[in-house]
Amino acid sequence: MAHHSTGQATAVQTDALVIGAGPVGLFQVFELGLLGISAQVVDSLPQAGGQCMALYADKPIYDIPGIARCTGRELTERLLAQIAPFKPAMHLGHIVNHLQRKPDGGFSIRTEQGLQWECKAVFIAAGVGAFSPKKLKLDGALAITVNPVQYQVQYPVDSSRPYAGQHVIILGDSEEALSSALALSQSTPAPASVSVLYRRDVFTAGPATIEQFRNAIRQGSIALHLGQATALKVENGRLIALQLMSNDGSELQLPCDALLSLQGLSPQLGPLADWGLAMERKQIQVDTEKFETSEPGIYAVGDINHYAGKQKLILCGFHEATLAAFAAAVRIRPQDNHALQYTTSSSLLQQRLGVR
Amino acid sequence: MAHHSTGQATAVQTDALVIGAGPVGLFQVFELGLLGISAQVVDSLPQAGGQCMALYADKPIYDIPGIARCTGRELTERLLAQIAPFKPAMHLGHIVNHLQRKPDGGFSIRTEQGLQWECKAVFIAAGVGAFSPKKLKLDGALAITVNPVQYQVQYPVDSSRPYAGQHVIILGDSEEALSSALALSQSTPAPASVSVLYRRDVFTAGPATIEQFRNAIRQGSIALHLGQATALKVENGRLIALQLMSNDGSELQLPCDALLSLQGLSPQLGPLADWGLAMERKQIQVDTEKFETSEPGIYAVGDINHYAGKQKLILCGFHEATLAAFAAAVRIRPQDNHALQYTTSSSLLQQRLGVR
Repeated sequence: MAHHSTGQATAVQTDALVIGAGPVGLFQVFELGLLGISAQVVDSLPQAGGQCMALYADKPIYDIPGIARCTGRELTERLLAQIAPFKPAMHLGHIVNHLQRKPDGGFSIRTEQGLQWECKAVFIAAGVGAFSPKKLKLDGALAITVNPVQYQVQYPVDSSRPYAGQHVIILGDSEEALSSALALSQSTPAPASVSVLYRRDVFTAGPATIEQFRNAIRQGSIALHLGQATALKVENGRLIALQLMSNDGSELQLPCDALLSLQGLSPQLGPLADWGLAMERKQIQVDTEKFETSEPGIYAVGDINHYAGKQKLILCGFHEATLAAFAAAVRIRPQDNHALQYTTSSSLLQQRLGVR
Repeated sequence: MAHHSTGQATAVQTDALVIGAGPVGLFQVFELGLLGISAQVVDSLPQAGGQCMALYADKPIYDIPGIARCTGRELTERLLAQIAPFKPAMHLGHIVNHLQRKPDGGFSIRTEQGLQWECKAVFIAAGVGAFSPKKLKLDGALAITVNPVQYQVQYPVDSSRPYAGQHVIILGDSEEALSSALALSQSTPAPASVSVLYRRDVFTAGPATIEQFRNAIRQGSIALHLGQATALKVENGRLIALQLMSNDGSELQLPCDALLSLQGLSPQLGPLADWGLAMERKQIQVDTEKFETSEPGIYAVGDINHYAGKQKLILCGFHEATLAAFAAAVRIRPQDNHALQYTTSSSLLQQRLGVR
């Protein structure tokens, strides 16, 4: 693998970069692999599977052709097994925030976390965008410099953080939120207090967690406040209290050294929106021959694209990824013959799949 | 179900008729079913599965998304299980030979075998066309009226036919051809002779059948001729002999009362070519929004259609069938809301699937 210096970071060279490790991004790797094109994958979430894993890992899907029923997790596992012969490098927990065309027509790409690639084709399979935690919009947030609000994407909270002796407030009602409150209330050395703030007395966490949570409230190791946060109180750059409006109409101010927001994920198109690609209603416009964007060499497949007739279905994304792969193969290897071959009969494809 | 007289036959009323029971035709039924549209299926072959069953029932397919490996037979079984909730009527062994638009914008359709439908939308999922036996093109064939050449699609040959005392010649080297020769050589009352004509001494039948076949040749119960048929000898409308050129250059004339051609299947676009649909290189032109042909209400999906970027892959046909189903739903039920729902979350779809 060739490397060359580009200032601070060293760029990895790859034929193709796939942004998004959801089912369509994974199948993109497969179709590129059949055509002899190696791809790397980058995704903002800590695991492959995209929305399938983030939103319905254990819920059934009934409309994948030939699979009468599978969960989001099972579909992800099946696709990971299918692309395993192509051994794609997967870079998880990385948000792409920079894309630039190079003089040779290829692309230079960076993530917030400092990874860098140079590639000949980019496949945006980013679904509804990168998932990031829902942000708090409260007065005072910008003034905090010492102990900023922590946004947690996944349970458990980082127990290596020094919460001993601190007043900790957790926002949210999810499994992650209540489990984190329980974990912190039982940690040693103990925090000064652990409170949960949520707008109503009904939670989306699992029944067992809710039962433990209610026990902890009865025992006084966790305080539950029903209401909404209204402001942050900050002194000398340090968060010292959370102001809230209780459901009974009273205003409260709770001492707060650490505020953990676990209010779920919200998708962000993020930097993708700044790449100058033609858009329509927050979707990237593509043609139906190559699924190419308005920038040659950048393809968009799956829920993030738009064309006449578009339906946001996983099975449609599989088709889109396939035609995009054929189009990109002509771009990446113009000298080769990319006529369709069948996996059932082609010894070349079977070699690439490692089954011959 | 409503019936009304249309001259001789009685037409079955259905929302949608799918021509072709290959994987894409089967999935067409699924996507229509999710949208609440009932469909009937017609296919020229005696079983569902199309080319998957006719050409590679036991060979592996590696590029169905989420299914790392399956045979043509397994894929067919999986799809039949997936569409089972919609209980589609399947009419196998029927070749559609008539399609006419009715004054109300719907269609009247008939098969060679006499079935008749009236429907609102037609989905042509006919792959490379109807499979029919490869026809002999020999002088004299048209003159035969008494004992015409028999074309067999499937093993076994019809043993109820009166071959007793007849000179029977079988053309072909397949499992079906050699097995039929063995069965006839062992039938009672016995034929006068059983011969096989093939162009070389290598056969595609299975090893066990080939071994039995060679034993029968050694024992004299079957005669093998290596060469090519050149003409049929006919007297008073009756086939009496087959003329052939042996591989050693000699000409032979074999007495022949019954000629069975088992030289495989060849696809025929057949009557589809006469329906006035816009074609391109023997494919039916469609748009990529609705996968509709030049005739509104007639859709073409899978290997039989053509559009910019087309790849003849099963997974692409699944996408095409999906978008065609949404387009047809608007045509068939213009008053309904056909916005996309997800099988994971929609109670309506789960009711239709029988999983709720």
